[in-house]
Amino acid sequence: MNTFEKSVMHVGEMASGAKLTVPIYRYHSEENSNPNRSQNLSPNLSPNVYIQANMHGAEVQGNAVIFQLLELLKNCQINANITLVPYANPVACNHKNGEYTLGRFDPITGVNWNRMYHFDQAVIAPFAEQHLDSAEEEIKTSFQQLLLAQIEQKLDHNSWGLTTGERIAYQLQAMAHQADIVLDLHTGPISSKHLYCPEYAKASASYFDIPHTLLIPNDFDGALDEATFCPWWDLQQAFSDVGRNFTMGEGAFAKESFTVELGSQEQIDLAAAHQDALGILSYLKHKGVVESSDEHDFSPQAMTRYACYLKDYRALYSPMGGMVDYLAEFGIPLAAGEPLARILRMDNYGDGDPIHNITLNDEALPILHFASASVNQGTELYKVFTNYFTL
Amino acid sequence: MNTFEKSVMHVGEMASGAKLTVPIYRYHSEENSNPNRSQNLSPNLSPNVYIQANMHGAEVQGNAVIFQLLELLKNCQINANITLVPYANPVACNHKNGEYTLGRFDPITGVNWNRMYHFDQAVIAPFAEQHLDSAEEEIKTSFQQLLLAQIEQKLDHNSWGLTTGERIAYQLQAMAHQADIVLDLHTGPISSKHLYCPEYAKASASYFDIPHTLLIPNDFDGALDEATFCPWWDLQQAFSDVGRNFTMGEGAFAKESFTVELGSQEQIDLAAAHQDALGILSYLKHKGVVESSDEHDFSPQAMTRYACYLKDYRALYSPMGGMVDYLAEFGIPLAAGEPLARILRMDNYGDGDPIHNITLNDEALPILHFASASVNQGTELYKVFTNYFTL
Amino acid sequence: MNTFEKSVMHVGEMASGAKLTVPIYRYHSEENSNPNRSQNLSPNLSPNVYIQANMHGAEVQGNAVIFQLLELLKNCQINANITLVPYANPVACNHKNGEYTLGRFDPITGVNWNRMYHFDQAVIAPFAEQHLDSAEEEIKTSFQQLLLAQIEQKLDHNSWGLTTGERIAYQLQAMAHQADIVLDLHTGPISSKHLYCPEYAKASASYFDIPHTLLIPNDFDGALDEATFCPWWDLQQAFSDVGRNFTMGEGAFAKESFTVELGSQEQIDLAAAHQDALGILSYLKHKGVVESSDEHDFSPQAMTRYACYLKDYRALYSPMGGMVDYLAEFGIPLAAGEPLARILRMDNYGDGDPIHNITLNDEALPILHFASASVNQGTELYKVFTNYFTL
Amino acid sequence: MNTFEKSVMHVGEMASGAKLTVPIYRYHSEENSNPNRSQNLSPNLSPNVYIQANMHGAEVQGNAVIFQLLELLKNCQINANITLVPYANPVACNHKNGEYTLGRFDPITGVNWNRMYHFDQAVIAPFAEQHLDSAEEEIKTSFQQLLLAQIEQKLDHNSWGLTTGERIAYQLQAMAHQADIVLDLHTGPISSKHLYCPEYAKASASYFDIPHTLLIPNDFDGALDEATFCPWWDLQQAFSDVGRNFTMGEGAFAKESFTVELGSQEQIDLAAAHQDALGILSYLKHKGVVESSDEHDFSPQAMTRYACYLKDYRALYSPMGGMVDYLAEFGIPLAAGEPLARILRMDNYGDGDPIHNITLNDEALPILHFASASVNQGTELYKVFTNYFTL
Repeated sequence: MNTFEKSVMHVGEMASGAKLTVPIYRYHSEENSNPNRSQNLSPNLSPNVYIQANMHGAEVQGNAVIFQLLELLKNCQINANITLVPYANPVACNHKNGEYTLGRFDPITGVNWNRMYHFDQAVIAPFAEQHLDSAEEEIKTSFQQLLLAQIEQKLDHNSWGLTTGERIAYQLQAMAHQADIVLDLHTGPISSKHLYCPEYAKASASYFDIPHTLLIPNDFDGALDEATFCPWWDLQQAFSDVGRNFTMGEGAFAKESFTVELGSQEQIDLAAAHQDALGILSYLKHKGVVESSDEHDFSPQAMTRYACYLKDYRALYSPMGGMVDYLAEFGIPLAAGEPLARILRMDNYGDGDPIHNITLNDEALPILHFASASVNQGTELYKVFTNYFTL
Repeated sequence: MNTFEKSVMHVGEMASGAKLTVPIYRYHSEENSNPNRSQNLSPNLSPNVYIQANMHGAEVQGNAVIFQLLELLKNCQINANITLVPYANPVACNHKNGEYTLGRFDPITGVNWNRMYHFDQAVIAPFAEQHLDSAEEEIKTSFQQLLLAQIEQKLDHNSWGLTTGERIAYQLQAMAHQADIVLDLHTGPISSKHLYCPEYAKASASYFDIPHTLLIPNDFDGALDEATFCPWWDLQQAFSDVGRNFTMGEGAFAKESFTVELGSQEQIDLAAAHQDALGILSYLKHKGVVESSDEHDFSPQAMTRYACYLKDYRALYSPMGGMVDYLAEFGIPLAAGEPLARILRMDNYGDGDPIHNITLNDEALPILHFASASVNQGTELYKVFTNYFTL
Repeated sequence: MNTFEKSVMHVGEMASGAKLTVPIYRYHSEENSNPNRSQNLSPNLSPNVYIQANMHGAEVQGNAVIFQLLELLKNCQINANITLVPYANPVACNHKNGEYTLGRFDPITGVNWNRMYHFDQAVIAPFAEQHLDSAEEEIKTSFQQLLLAQIEQKLDHNSWGLTTGERIAYQLQAMAHQADIVLDLHTGPISSKHLYCPEYAKASASYFDIPHTLLIPNDFDGALDEATFCPWWDLQQAFSDVGRNFTMGEGAFAKESFTVELGSQEQIDLAAAHQDALGILSYLKHKGVVESSDEHDFSPQAMTRYACYLKDYRALYSPMGGMVDYLAEFGIPLAAGEPLARILRMDNYGDGDPIHNITLNDEALPILHFASASVNQGTELYKVFTNYFTL
Repeated sequence: MNTFEKSVMHVGEMASGAKLTVPIYRYHSEENSNPNRSQNLSPNLSPNVYIQANMHGAEVQGNAVIFQLLELLKNCQINANITLVPYANPVACNHKNGEYTLGRFDPITGVNWNRMYHFDQAVIAPFAEQHLDSAEEEIKTSFQQLLLAQIEQKLDHNSWGLTTGERIAYQLQAMAHQADIVLDLHTGPISSKHLYCPEYAKASASYFDIPHTLLIPNDFDGALDEATFCPWWDLQQAFSDVGRNFTMGEGAFAKESFTVELGSQEQIDLAAAHQDALGILSYLKHKGVVESSDEHDFSPQAMTRYACYLKDYRALYSPMGGMVDYLAEFGIPLAAGEPLARILRMDNYGDGDPIHNITLNDEALPILHFASASVNQGTELYKVFTNYFTL
């Protein structure tokens, strides 16, 4: 039997004193909420889930996906706790700059809102040493408590204060650390759907209805997905260093975090969001979190799924200022030397070359491009998969 | 025999001293450049043309259209002077705010770049009185000289200086006043193609390949189209007040100015620009400026052309903050009560109404909508034709 | 006996659904709140007062002045209703752009927040005709009701909606129309204190502790001061046109509105705010609104008070891009030809002139200058009084 | 005998094709420009100098300081090459956002302009091994060539392109690597003068006329000062690791880099710049770069010089949104518990606490504060020295 609960979290305050809040929706599974639950790693117990959207202000489609998830979950059997957080960063999602939403970074400092989560590598090795002989269940419980305690320390015991973004990020991260599966819903600028997936969780990528997967290593750079899986990956390696072997992705280490890129920013499409929600439920059914409903069996769609390693995900920066006609379609392999884009330079008309074709030296799979035709020299034009393969 | 010429105009200077320039392309018709030309209103003489693009920074497609016009004009017979000015406002078109271009207004003052052109109504009546008995040719020549002299006075004899936008606008306007036909190439935010057309020039609207026409009255509000036709319209009325009748749009008063809205901002599409250029050449052929080429006969496309009066072009402002799924398609009549858009408000999920349908009380023809899904209470959502009719 | 009341007004909603509110503080005078009050124009009855601050986002010092006014009013006898509204425009005052507050205009549309108030000139003449023989008290009551009804119509009966700024402005204006004295607290960029004062109210300017007064004519351009006094001025003139003479500033027409410029933007100085509050109370005591307190007698300071007419308040626009060393001090007459500023152009060092002196052709009194050293060609450098005189 | 030379470097291109350039001023010392110079570490040879300003757009005072340095150097004997680069980042210094200059980060990406310089730690150890027995002169020459070759590789052999900021930074860095002394002229927001000084160069700090010195460790975080001294510091340590000892700051390792914070941003003050220039020349005279002139002996001023280690330079983030009255004066020790600032919250007036005092738990020396009164919860309010001492 599940219960559904709505609450509101206070995450920021503006100059007029206006409070910024985040709505939180939770399905509580009776079983998973049992206080003894974490002592029990039985395969029957389903992983808890945390899903948030809109950490970057212009990346709004995840809110619609959470809406459709909530609508679909009404008619599902749910086997675990699921927490859903739309409008995760109201400072960003309310910040209009001209007609658009200035959403990737704090407009005062420039710091990317998704590079402010916390991870202190220094705690890993001591924990492994201390728990060399602990039961796996205890390792899971204690390490989660350690992660939560660190966040609480940052939030509540810091006389010098926190930046605007840290305050938001840490409050979200405290919820995410209580889950086993973390989905951070983002979008690209003008973009295909793609998925950031930890290398060890590659098998899961095929359960999402997403044709492009980036396999990311165990490097912490401040993002939520990294902040939730890297500590466990590092812990598993620290145990390995001291002679105790666990498998990342299994048992106490059954932690998976994904950044789900839902397409283009600045758009809400409720019909597309329904499809996106079905894809997420396909993955969650695979993990045992939900069961098929009468209406939907939550199976992954058949499609070619391309993947590449993060090191092979390349950005092309514009070799000149100008106005860009983006030519390459997303998800369609582009041969070396074929035009990716052409750049108009009307100032060169008549005495120079008004059109410059932009090509790559190697075959690539275009994934996303810049949101505006107008670029400076050095603006990121396209991001592409190179050395890609099918899953 | 035509000559083609490129020049560069200095329009602004930034804090580092960087100079901002505008490229100017000109076809000179031997006949029209004859100094005696304006004394001769013979029907054989074709009207001179001025075309500019990108006065608003994000509205870049006009630059691509000027590129395609220049390419097409290479193979045309040209009967008049044609001046083409891309990147008309480099201050605006170089001003990035986040990923997008902040282009509708001076980022320092907020003043719309297309509300800074000059018109001094006070000179009209005295001119009409002074030229009550002048020949029509002389009226045309003298009034044009008066308009140019006023601009020159503003540009060169002003010890208090000019605003950044006035300096740009006046330099462009001095070129536009030397033409009979003025086309100012703009775009909407996310938009259908539409045309701002003076009421008296309605017959010309059907020669453009544009399905939506706004018929605008003789009110000066600072835009280039108004700044170039309103003085002549007012002059014709001033002559009428003192008993001499001319017909607006004919003879000395054969002046037509249009703001051509080419679709959506932030986009360059060279293929679409080729089509847009053909539509403009269709109008110019109708006016005798160009002849059909071997490849193209420059005839207007068959299409339903809707029109409405400016007073019936209505903006709908959002009744709430939220995230918008824009539903109504451009150019397809929307019945009263049908949803134009729906607004997602996830904060209301669970204890309120998370989806609000936005409807209109009367049938309307959607023309454009806001560029972002995220809106404040009071953001302009859609602009629509009401009381529209077919041309 | 007065009562003090706090309330909160909802003025806007952002994309996340966050509500923006404005706090309102009111002293109610028993006598003035008598429903029969407006039927009674006895000289013993004091004018009601409306004071707001921070309509422009960066102009925050007025909030501190309202704080100090509230503190001082605690110990005063108050003879009228006083309404005080800090943070009048939370959309603007919460809008950071980089480190600073983008406050003068709607960041989406560019429209100046203080140009959105309502006035429909068309209602004036019919009202005068209708009330040609009405008692003066009735004229006052009925015209105020008309103004309020127009605002209410705009706010509540508009199926096309209102812009973000109109919704805020109209809600504020409804409060202001219920007062006889309106003070709109602003600041300049880097600025001296100065006062916008209607020409007919010149005598009142000497009761503020402000050394510079701009005398403004009866032209409505959308600002709050104009929106509250112009209707009455026009009405008085409309009565005059039909043969009934009232004196503007007296009896039913005893309406005074001022825009009070408190110095520079982006600053809170509570000590200076205390002085500013004393100056405002000096004016209010003169008007009979408050009495001297034990601590303060609320008398104007002795100072030279300069004034000029609005037409003689001139802006100087930068003749070049560059970096400005602002030299002229505010409030000190600057002789013709003396340097107002010098502009550094390091790009010209070595082969040109790296320093340009900026001078004026006539004596002037510097009032304010631009907020940044970095200017484009055409940026407003200074505003100065010319043809000024002492009050 | 010196020669003076001006050149212009192309560093960027905007959407209209407008080129952005940087002026470069160079004094060439005949001796130091001798191609054999670097083979000669004789104590008579003076260090070459590189000085740039305005990498952050709003931090303009350095341009004025370079102007005054150039004026003063006209009358000095100069013993080395000096390169001076004002307007180092024209993309940033021309980017107005509202009235102010958005200068700390790329407005498209948010990346701090002063975090994009290059340093590849991986080349250090191999170089030390390879040059274990090289002459010191050869080490200096070869390592400089290596650093320059790396930059050249990045600039000219990168088929994926460079970001806007990298292109600028690398071009500047190529000049800086050719000098022994690097001064990067910055400012704080509202700020005292302070100096970032490598720990090993502490003795030099007393030759600048700057009362506050931050001693920074050998950590590379992307800034120009670090990018120019860290490679040498790391090299010296790498040699030490393999058993060859050099002293950082001497001989081939006589490299000193400083970030000089000249006060507050958004201001040009040519008189203050003259003083700032004298302070820099005092340091350069100490290093033997210049000799006293007839007019100036270039000696440091007597003043108390406070210093602290970078780890003790603390930022205080606002515990709430509100409007700040900054109280603490720069450079004056503030006792624990004394108010640093007070925050006005008018929304709390009447039913809460409208004024919040902000205090610190320990004594501190205030160095700079935020540029605007309006802050969000989490905005950096002040930066202060803790555990400071006198030099």
